[in-house]
Amino acid sequence: MRVRGQFITFEGTEGVGKSTQLTNAADTLAGLGVDYIVTREPGGTPMAEAVRELLLAPRDEPVNEITELLLMFAARAQHLHTRILPALEQGQWVLCDRFTDATFAYQGGGRGVPEERIALLETLVQGDIRPDHVIVLDAPVDTGMARARKRGDLDRFEQEDLEFFQRIRETYLARAMAQPSRYHVIDAARPLAEVSGQVSELLNHWLSRSQAD
Amino acid sequence: MRVRGQFITFEGTEGVGKSTQLTNAADTLAGLGVDYIVTREPGGTPMAEAVRELLLAPRDEPVNEITELLLMFAARAQHLHTRILPALEQGQWVLCDRFTDATFAYQGGGRGVPEERIALLETLVQGDIRPDHVIVLDAPVDTGMARARKRGDLDRFEQEDLEFFQRIRETYLARAMAQPSRYHVIDAARPLAEVSGQVSELLNHWLSRSQAD
Repeated sequence: MRVRGQFITFEGTEGVGKSTQLTNAADTLAGLGVDYIVTREPGGTPMAEAVRELLLAPRDEPVNEITELLLMFAARAQHLHTRILPALEQGQWVLCDRFTDATFAYQGGGRGVPEERIALLETLVQGDIRPDHVIVLDAPVDTGMARARKRGDLDRFEQEDLEFFQRIRETYLARAMAQPSRYHVIDAARPLAEVSGQVSELLNHWLSRSQAD
Repeated sequence: MRVRGQFITFEGTEGVGKSTQLTNAADTLAGLGVDYIVTREPGGTPMAEAVRELLLAPRDEPVNEITELLLMFAARAQHLHTRILPALEQGQWVLCDRFTDATFAYQGGGRGVPEERIALLETLVQGDIRPDHVIVLDAPVDTGMARARKRGDLDRFEQEDLEFFQRIRETYLARAMAQPSRYHVIDAARPLAEVSGQVSELLNHWLSRSQAD
């Protein structure tokens, strides 16, 4: 019998090192002989990536907050049903850069969209599908923003102020606190080797557990 | 006191003459000295038009039906809140080529998305805002399709089969039957002058009624 893959998402505010940890996680899984894909949200399929471009492009037209929310979930429906679920069913592990927790954090905490509206769309698009594990890379917002700004041109989200990202960080931490079995908060302000070590350790643990099932 | 404009939508399957009747309606309103805008869905603002392009482009990737539905409502939220409502509040009449009835007809009747899901998004995006009047241009599906095909390259919807459009026509007629005070079905298979005459007559009637209020 083929075992369903694990669905693992990486969350956090700008500049906390998500890309680095996704690469580290992929290397760890490769070393363990686990078949996996690395993907991201919004995006992950050609159509969903086109929606991502629409969402991130700085524009003169003020973007309605419900428009932004629906575009996020439109991209997610496409990504989940045409890429993530087929991979999991084939036994592949899915490492995903952001998922619905980011919508609760950015559109909910950041923009102030009521949580119930987001939850309603979560159910419409995902039914009861949730990530098996959420890794929240946590660091003070000013540290991360300084790193993000060094990368060059800022997208429509990165142009927001520090308070916006502070609310996002708090939403991530509150969600992690509410469901400690599924969320893993990692202090991303520590030296890189320690952060990477902790991520690899979690993956090792989840792999042994899934093999023991 | 400034009177709120009337929100009038034009609906129907492919090739029933919506564009012609929108032009006729605009000319009629101009002749009556009514201030108006003509717009369309999906689209009507630069961002919503970009979503329209995503929706209509033929593509190899199969488009998830919930993705399509959410993109339609994302474009609608942007159009409604940044263009339609401001125009109505300034007293302009809004003539719109398709609106939410098209979503019930195409994604609901055509694709088989349950009506409750569409109604849920309608409430999320529109609250209790509905068009004041819906003009349904009705004609046998094969007549309209033959006209649409003559126009050249077919978009992702126009490539569907006759049964798809038959279900769409039936959904429009059922919705019109359920709310006869707000829906006006016009037999669009008759000579153009008669169809145009009937549309102009309705507009004249709605104008007198709004002035009498």
